[in-house]
Amino acid sequence: MALPASNLTKEHNRIARFFAPLCASEVGAFGLQNDAAMLDVPEDKKLIITSDSCIEGWHVPMGASMQHIAQKLVRRNLSDVAAMGALPWRYMLNLHLPKSTNDEAVEAFAQALQEEQATYNMVLIGGDSTFGGDHIHATLTMLALTTSGCHMRSGARAGDRLYVTGTIGDATLALMAIQGAITPSAEQHDYFMSRYYTPAPRLEVGKALQGIATSVIDVSDGLMSDAEHLARASNVSMHIDTKRIPLSDAATRYKAQHIDAMLRGGDDYELLFTAPKDASESLAQLAKSHGAAITEIGIVIHASDKWVIAE
Amino acid sequence: MALPASNLTKEHNRIARFFAPLCASEVGAFGLQNDAAMLDVPEDKKLIITSDSCIEGWHVPMGASMQHIAQKLVRRNLSDVAAMGALPWRYMLNLHLPKSTNDEAVEAFAQALQEEQATYNMVLIGGDSTFGGDHIHATLTMLALTTSGCHMRSGARAGDRLYVTGTIGDATLALMAIQGAITPSAEQHDYFMSRYYTPAPRLEVGKALQGIATSVIDVSDGLMSDAEHLARASNVSMHIDTKRIPLSDAATRYKAQHIDAMLRGGDDYELLFTAPKDASESLAQLAKSHGAAITEIGIVIHASDKWVIAE
Repeated sequence: MALPASNLTKEHNRIARFFAPLCASEVGAFGLQNDAAMLDVPEDKKLIITSDSCIEGWHVPMGASMQHIAQKLVRRNLSDVAAMGALPWRYMLNLHLPKSTNDEAVEAFAQALQEEQATYNMVLIGGDSTFGGDHIHATLTMLALTTSGCHMRSGARAGDRLYVTGTIGDATLALMAIQGAITPSAEQHDYFMSRYYTPAPRLEVGKALQGIATSVIDVSDGLMSDAEHLARASNVSMHIDTKRIPLSDAATRYKAQHIDAMLRGGDDYELLFTAPKDASESLAQLAKSHGAAITEIGIVIHASDKWVIAE
Repeated sequence: MALPASNLTKEHNRIARFFAPLCASEVGAFGLQNDAAMLDVPEDKKLIITSDSCIEGWHVPMGASMQHIAQKLVRRNLSDVAAMGALPWRYMLNLHLPKSTNDEAVEAFAQALQEEQATYNMVLIGGDSTFGGDHIHATLTMLALTTSGCHMRSGARAGDRLYVTGTIGDATLALMAIQGAITPSAEQHDYFMSRYYTPAPRLEVGKALQGIATSVIDVSDGLMSDAEHLARASNVSMHIDTKRIPLSDAATRYKAQHIDAMLRGGDDYELLFTAPKDASESLAQLAKSHGAAITEIGIVIHASDKWVIAE
């Protein structure tokens, strides 16, 4: 009996062609050729690890471009890293694509990852890939590093002020536009889409908040839900002045009709945090030096059974 | 305008109830309440990281039990850890369940993970969960530790002997039984299913092979494919004597008809490795002390265009 050697599968060829180049700068990724990666975590650092998926039809609409899926997948994870006050380092990718996915689509995905790596200074080190099913299901596990510990959700104290970076509600309006519930101008449409698919994780601000913020979370579930997470973890309540919630110019025209959806919708990927009252000057300085808006939107009060009081 | 605080979702309640207890022994998991986990990697260790999914209808048949899905998910990953010569430490879980999944099923999954944690000395530290879609899609990212480096696939040299642990083909026969292609006795059926759903990762043997093996891989794609992976990575060829492939008693009766499928089928989760000719006594000793069969099945020869020659 003689058995010929099996052919390497299409899957292995795609990994070698499109994904192995992404790990070139980390020798411990072994060119994606080993059973696992091996990393030397720098001795003076702690390892931060988070993982989030991007599922077509769930986190992005069916038919989203490969570039957008890759970008959103990376940035959802980086937003968690930002909320910890850490900086990205290495990542694992689990990519499950429909059988019909062609090489061009896989290449577009890898190309987008390459650009994200260059922007955010991180390197692919491993994962798995499968072809089957009827939608794209991608999971990314991000390893990040921090020198000086990390932010918690549990440090908010009565009297602290509540702040949020950037603007809230743009991603919700993007989703409403995709669903046909609103019809923004072409320019506004593009702006909302960029906020939905390519949010800018607040990494530098998150890091700079070390020693200032008493609690931090990224706004992924929605401002109201995430304020509640901070409140519950800290056993306090958040009194939010909804008139002060920062909105983009494009979003302002939808305020009257859709503010509720904008405060409850997710995917803002801004940082929501608390800081002592006397930190306001440091925060103004920090906002200026990082070119990021930081807006005071409320105050922390003693726990009630409400957790979040918005008015 | 007054907005009531949102309710914590069913998802958050399930995480708190079923999964938070699994991370109790790692303070850096923050009770699964933070945006990410923070870990102190022991200074004298290197971090090994691997990730594999278990998708219903792909890695396990549709309708597999929650316990079996959890066990197979964990052990697929641990087999990669074994192939690196490392020991498990911490893990991330991404769990995507159909909306119809009830609490009992989630609890069964978490309970199985708890048992795996006790067996393999590892701790849940984070991940994400989503409800939607029509099948279970679970991904696990395993962090493991090693003191003395790791095995590679690329160290096989001409003259080395090729070895495999345990027996080959049982999982393939399990899948054939599930598909109705063979009809084993009840006892054999149970044996094949246990090999398919709850393979025993060769962690101790993998660790003990440090300093002995010249290349190591775990048999997940199939003996022939994985031998080819070793051969290509080492730029040698493997001459396999198929008469020497170790089979279980239950599998032996299927040899004549199905040996080809058994050598090509995957999911064995045994270790396939090469070692110098003069290591045979050390290996016999190692097999004895770990209660694991180690069988010489071939020899490494200079590279040819065949990679694997089986006869």
